[in-house]
Amino acid sequence: MVLLRRELGDVLREERQHQGRTLREVSSSAAVSLGYLSEVERGEKEASSELLGSICGALGMPLSEVLREVSTRVAITESLTAPVTLPVAAASVVASAA
Amino acid sequence: MVLLRRELGDVLREERQHQGRTLREVSSSAAVSLGYLSEVERGEKEASSELLGSICGALGMPLSEVLREVSTRVAITESLTAPVTLPVAAASVVASAA
Repeated sequence: MVLLRRELGDVLREERQHQGRTLREVSSSAAVSLGYLSEVERGEKEASSELLGSICGALGMPLSEVLREVSTRVAITESLTAPVTLPVAAASVVASAA
Repeated sequence: MVLLRRELGDVLREERQHQGRTLREVSSSAAVSLGYLSEVERGEKEASSELLGSICGALGMPLSEVLREVSTRVAITESLTAPVTLPVAAASVVASAA
């Protein structure tokens, strides 16, 4: 199962690192503890909606943008973990090409 | 502040109602308590990533799709609550039209 907190943590951490900022800076700006932010980034803790909003604010990234990015990543993971079904048409093409 | 759990709850409730299903049916299918699902739908409880995954599974709606819909709604709310700044060019047009 794709877990929201893992994908969310990845997006938040990558954005922070992209900005060249430390856990200490962002946690201070978001008024959350460094340990909490670290756990959220590692996908080990569910961020409450309020603290997620604070973290997004500290990163200067709208929540909608964070969620869109998370949605895109989750879609990729879903497509990788979905059972593969070969369409009949494609199978016929393969058969006739052989 | 836009709260993820409220927008998420709205999306999950509307999808369930769109399918014409009851809280009892979906909570049973997702193996979560009816009270929990009800609180999540009302935006009163943060859904854990695992239970959110179960609820999405019960609704037959990929998590990525739920998040994309939530992202769209959050973006609308953000645009409505953002401070309004009138661009200089637009202000000039208004001034010259007056």
